[in-house]
Amino acid sequence: MAAKEAAASVPSTPLLKDELDIVIPTIRNLDFLEMWRPFFQPYHLIIVQDGDPSKTINVPKGFDYELYNRNDINRILGPKANCISFKDSACRCFGYMVSKKKYIYTIDDDCFVAKDPTGKDINALEQHIKNLLSPSTPYFFNTLYDPYREGADFVRGYPFSLREGAPTAVSHGLWLNIPDYDAPTQLVKPRERNSRYVDAVLTIPKGTLFPMCGMNLAFDRQLIGPAMYFGLMGDGQPIGRYDDMWAGWCIKVICDHLGLGVKTGLPYIWHSKASNPFVNLKKEYKGIFWQEELIPFFQSASLPKDCTTVQKCYIELSKQVKEKLGKIDPYFTKLADAMVTWIEAWDELNSAGAQAPAPVANGTAKK
Amino acid sequence: MAAKEAAASVPSTPLLKDELDIVIPTIRNLDFLEMWRPFFQPYHLIIVQDGDPSKTINVPKGFDYELYNRNDINRILGPKANCISFKDSACRCFGYMVSKKKYIYTIDDDCFVAKDPTGKDINALEQHIKNLLSPSTPYFFNTLYDPYREGADFVRGYPFSLREGAPTAVSHGLWLNIPDYDAPTQLVKPRERNSRYVDAVLTIPKGTLFPMCGMNLAFDRQLIGPAMYFGLMGDGQPIGRYDDMWAGWCIKVICDHLGLGVKTGLPYIWHSKASNPFVNLKKEYKGIFWQEELIPFFQSASLPKDCTTVQKCYIELSKQVKEKLGKIDPYFTKLADAMVTWIEAWDELNSAGAQAPAPVANGTAKK
Repeated sequence: MAAKEAAASVPSTPLLKDELDIVIPTIRNLDFLEMWRPFFQPYHLIIVQDGDPSKTINVPKGFDYELYNRNDINRILGPKANCISFKDSACRCFGYMVSKKKYIYTIDDDCFVAKDPTGKDINALEQHIKNLLSPSTPYFFNTLYDPYREGADFVRGYPFSLREGAPTAVSHGLWLNIPDYDAPTQLVKPRERNSRYVDAVLTIPKGTLFPMCGMNLAFDRQLIGPAMYFGLMGDGQPIGRYDDMWAGWCIKVICDHLGLGVKTGLPYIWHSKASNPFVNLKKEYKGIFWQEELIPFFQSASLPKDCTTVQKCYIELSKQVKEKLGKIDPYFTKLADAMVTWIEAWDELNSAGAQAPAPVANGTAKK
Repeated sequence: MAAKEAAASVPSTPLLKDELDIVIPTIRNLDFLEMWRPFFQPYHLIIVQDGDPSKTINVPKGFDYELYNRNDINRILGPKANCISFKDSACRCFGYMVSKKKYIYTIDDDCFVAKDPTGKDINALEQHIKNLLSPSTPYFFNTLYDPYREGADFVRGYPFSLREGAPTAVSHGLWLNIPDYDAPTQLVKPRERNSRYVDAVLTIPKGTLFPMCGMNLAFDRQLIGPAMYFGLMGDGQPIGRYDDMWAGWCIKVICDHLGLGVKTGLPYIWHSKASNPFVNLKKEYKGIFWQEELIPFFQSASLPKDCTTVQKCYIELSKQVKEKLGKIDPYFTKLADAMVTWIEAWDELNSAGAQAPAPVANGTAKK
């Protein structure tokens, strides 16, 4: 009975098995994968090793993976490797670039399987895939949330012409236990835990920005991949912990321009431990005041009609970053240049004739 | 023990007892109030009797109420009474106008007390009051929903300058059991029931429209009252069931302009029975295609800076309705005129020297 139930919770043919890569940035052994085994094992993993490349990262047996460390990134990208952050989880976006799949799921190695209110393990990946494969509703708010979900629909007053929805580019999942707070909030509320399971998925409306967290995030690489750049953070940079935020603001402006949807809500993962708020404050403090200018910038950013591809949108956005944010701090001029480098590297690795890069470690550890 | 629990679910001093009126449009005896007694009895009710004024509406004993029928409306408003709909629940907005309180809660008489997932009766009014008394966040989306709720906060990346929030003008509650579907959806999904309890309150972002349902709705009369006009519906009009939608689009444009917040989500009520989809289709069918032009109109509506009061905003909006929607159908010219009449009547009844109108029935039935 127990075995039958366990089997029932995993779809017999995993959704998008050959069309999705799981990207994990890490500096440690990936023991956390043991808990995810029933859900992740059918998929291919791209592990981006941060920090000391001479360290060996252990991957639990039975997982199919490729692993890149800093030496690999430098070798594969050459001088363009400077657009990939070091000693910061922003390095994960290298995994997006080397993937050849249509979909990406990225998760932090301190995130575990959460339980729904009935006590059942949540297959976060399956919910993300559902979110990505069903349309979004960015143009009008549906008060019963996701209208495509079983048991729900568009409510009275929802324009019929908008019920076809828009393609979904991004699915942003949430976290039980340790909420994703900034350093000041961590300091003020050290004991706060998120125990509220909100059973909803919703589309972030067009024109509205949100704080995108990279901890539990899925996206359609073909639709939005080249904009999922996590910026310059960590080693040698004046800022950290704004990598996913930066990407979130960029992708939202571009999704709005291209008519793509961004969802947030389910699935939850269990975020196991809070990072050190003092260390975080040091990483964040410039971001805390810079973002007061970044938000109005992104809120008013507008892309010309001839920006019809993600790449064109991103290059245009990089110009606006240089022009309008460069005066805040020289960092933004450097970041704008890195945005261009990122697109060049993306196109190099993803052009029709591009060869698959060779990672340092590759294979399926036998059980 | 059971008595203690029941007592605990009702706050000892009901929130805003002397600052809130409950407005109920009805054509029948108000037996549904029995179920609401623990939550509503401390408050004053304004009952707007629709249909035949010679019919007597029974109000359960112990409730403090005033009741207006069509004769009262005609007597109190004189020629301006033509802005108040007849044979349609849109007549409820007359109750908003004659109230002297700061807050309004309006509920349909086929709505009962719902239960939360733990089986506890939901005090819908208390939740609406909480929603109205805490700020909204219309300028940036918070992924953990209402940041002012216990156990929640603003997440990493939420600009600090926006954490003070905006005053909340409207709280839109939801429905378990019968969802608020339009006639086509009712016809296609006759058996669909809403059983999903989504434990969230969220702010509809600035610039985003939503379908506001009048079944379970609270608002701050001082902040937004004069815009809560439910339009011309029902008897003698070519359209019905768009009263609350119309009000919702108007208030959203005006709240966005004035920097006020609109929330949706909790509380749920139990919506007991679906209205007849064939009758509904007849009422709705013009609305179904008109709204395809109304939504772009409201999405692009912009109010000039000198519109600093709700009244000024509403008069300006009425001009734009006449100018831009009048060409769809003469109905919108009539509606634009009625919008002006509504504001005139509102100001007459709500000016400093205005006397309280005398309803036909008034009093507290003794237990």
